Amino acid sequence: MGTGETVKLSITQENLNRALASVGRIVSNRTSLPVLSNILLTTDGNRLRLSATNLELGINYWIGSKIEQEGSLTVPSRLLAEFVNNLPHGNLELESNDTALTIRTPHYESTLNGIAADEFPPIPQVTSKPALSLDATILREALAQVVVAASLDEARPVLAGVYLYTEESVLYVVATDSYRLAEKQIALETDPSEPLSVIVPVRTMQELIRLLAEHDGEVELYRDDNQVMFRTGEIELTSRLIDGQFPNYRQIIPKQATTSFDIETTEFSKITKVASLFARESAGSLKLEIRAEGEVRLVSSDSEAGGSTATAECAVSGDDGEISLNARYLQDALAAMKSPAVTFAVSGKLSACVLSPFDPKNEAAEADYLHIIMPLRT
Amino acid sequence: MGTGETVKLSITQENLNRALASVGRIVSNRTSLPVLSNILLTTDGNRLRLSATNLELGINYWIGSKIEQEGSLTVPSRLLAEFVNNLPHGNLELESNDTALTIRTPHYESTLNGIAADEFPPIPQVTSKPALSLDATILREALAQVVVAASLDEARPVLAGVYLYTEESVLYVVATDSYRLAEKQIALETDPSEPLSVIVPVRTMQELIRLLAEHDGEVELYRDDNQVMFRTGEIELTSRLIDGQFPNYRQIIPKQATTSFDIETTEFSKITKVASLFARESAGSLKLEIRAEGEVRLVSSDSEAGGSTATAECAVSGDDGEISLNARYLQDALAAMKSPAVTFAVSGKLSACVLSPFDPKNEAAEADYLHIIMPLRT
Repeated sequence: MGTGETVKLSITQENLNRALASVGRIVSNRTSLPVLSNILLTTDGNRLRLSATNLELGINYWIGSKIEQEGSLTVPSRLLAEFVNNLPHGNLELESNDTALTIRTPHYESTLNGIAADEFPPIPQVTSKPALSLDATILREALAQVVVAASLDEARPVLAGVYLYTEESVLYVVATDSYRLAEKQIALETDPSEPLSVIVPVRTMQELIRLLAEHDGEVELYRDDNQVMFRTGEIELTSRLIDGQFPNYRQIIPKQATTSFDIETTEFSKITKVASLFARESAGSLKLEIRAEGEVRLVSSDSEAGGSTATAECAVSGDDGEISLNARYLQDALAAMKSPAVTFAVSGKLSACVLSPFDPKNEAAEADYLHIIMPLRT
Repeated sequence: MGTGETVKLSITQENLNRALASVGRIVSNRTSLPVLSNILLTTDGNRLRLSATNLELGINYWIGSKIEQEGSLTVPSRLLAEFVNNLPHGNLELESNDTALTIRTPHYESTLNGIAADEFPPIPQVTSKPALSLDATILREALAQVVVAASLDEARPVLAGVYLYTEESVLYVVATDSYRLAEKQIALETDPSEPLSVIVPVRTMQELIRLLAEHDGEVELYRDDNQVMFRTGEIELTSRLIDGQFPNYRQIIPKQATTSFDIETTEFSKITKVASLFARESAGSLKLEIRAEGEVRLVSSDSEAGGSTATAECAVSGDDGEISLNARYLQDALAAMKSPAVTFAVSGKLSACVLSPFDPKNEAAEADYLHIIMPLRT
């Protein structure tokens, strides 16, 4: 069973090394199925395909190669990646013998014991037409601003995902763990032929962010009933979808505010960081006091460690205000903001507060990003 | 009972931050005695003294300060260091109230709950005349080349230390875990008035390496019966000594070799790194084969993962040779070497091998460093 065909090919260390670094990230070394710790190598025309899967998420990565003999086998991902990473630049000769792979350079010759290719679970391909195509950098930045708000808890599966949907030539990218919510809008050049509505596991999105950081250009999204595939250049990332209905989140977005202020993002981050040091015992609770004369104060206290008041100047509209927030949620929101300044809006102690980017040079600009944090009841 | 005197002073964020980073490193947060997680702050003339101890090792660090009211108290090291690290540059006002310390800047005011100074264990001072004085950079580099060979196991206490002794205007710095040994010689400008011979815990030496990396100039060594103190600038590091007799290691240093080779250190490191990937199952065993025609080969094999042969060119003197070594010990020795090239000398499979720096521009130079590795019996 499973003596793969003999593979023989040559490939550059640089290309193989880069591909292994990307593909290897989704490989778990703590799996009960040994073949899942391996990478599948398959010749495909004049390319070598590297594949890895953790059963929820699969990746195919093609690199140019001089194929002398076609075939496939699997070898341990981590050992292969570490080995290739330590080889000098230049050509590598790969040749398999049954399930062992030998890699040769002028100064190195190593053999890695593998597992036959037919024990590797197939990575399903989604072969429909692309549902959406957009700039990789724009999608990556949008996802990076949103994933932090997703739930890490699988108790409510839809919240452990990122919701992507289109409406009137806009792609909405949304995540919420029910304590906070982030939404990014991306204007599409053309209306998609069919409206899109999928919930993708947050782990897939984190992996996509990393892949797109290394590969710009266009990214295409393909979907079928229970899968989604992202393709960019020579890489395909395939993932299961999360089944279920995303909460109707638009209803919780406050429409107006009794108090709001504009502040430099780094300044707000700094006082939040300091205040959070004294909020550990209180499960991260900070009191945010807004003074209409132009000041925001973060007050934290911890009966064991002590207490702290941190102050910053800001431009306030409306009344004095006060709200209690989780320090980490506020830090996460500010880190996701990306803009040099931010608007913070709130209507009393019990309403959700809304953070959005603020551009002092264009105060009328409509924000394409918002980050909502639910208050703590104190 | 423990109500310290009120302290009131001002100090710059930059100086306090730097001192806290150094002093905090020896503070354990997992101690059964809460006061040991704290830093002792004591006014001392026109300076503030910061002290920390883990009972084996103590540090005193003085910084300039404007003292308004003298006194002392202890506050949690980690919280204080994180807090001060996040404050803006400039002046900080410190004021205590009973055992609580308030720190103020124009935008921040925080209070840290502390513990009275009299609960802090005293850090004994060594007040003899200095036994030795030498350049901080030279001592740091010597220690960094030697500590890796010390034992991490306290079963034989003397091996968990670094042996410092003087003989004929030379300071010897030595460590061994009985599988390997490193010795550095430092030429002293003057013969010390009394010969020195101390064994200092390796943990102390690692801390001294870090401190000296931040502070050059002279370092003075003081000792009494069971303690040693290193002083550089405004810092004193005090440590217990290890009691006992260091092994008479000179007798195991081979006097000559049947085979030796000179090789570039980075080249040797690279092939060692690759070979070690395939030596995990064999507890790190590598076979080193020296070919008189000018080649060294590292052969490793692992019945589970596979096997590897890595080759490098080198200048060989003497016969062919072969020896089995622990891959990590060889990597550690090469990392400690610091010179662009190294001489590796061995006399058969069962003798210790000796690595020493090699200078192709001055082949006759006497090496002031040697690193010995005992062979594995295979």
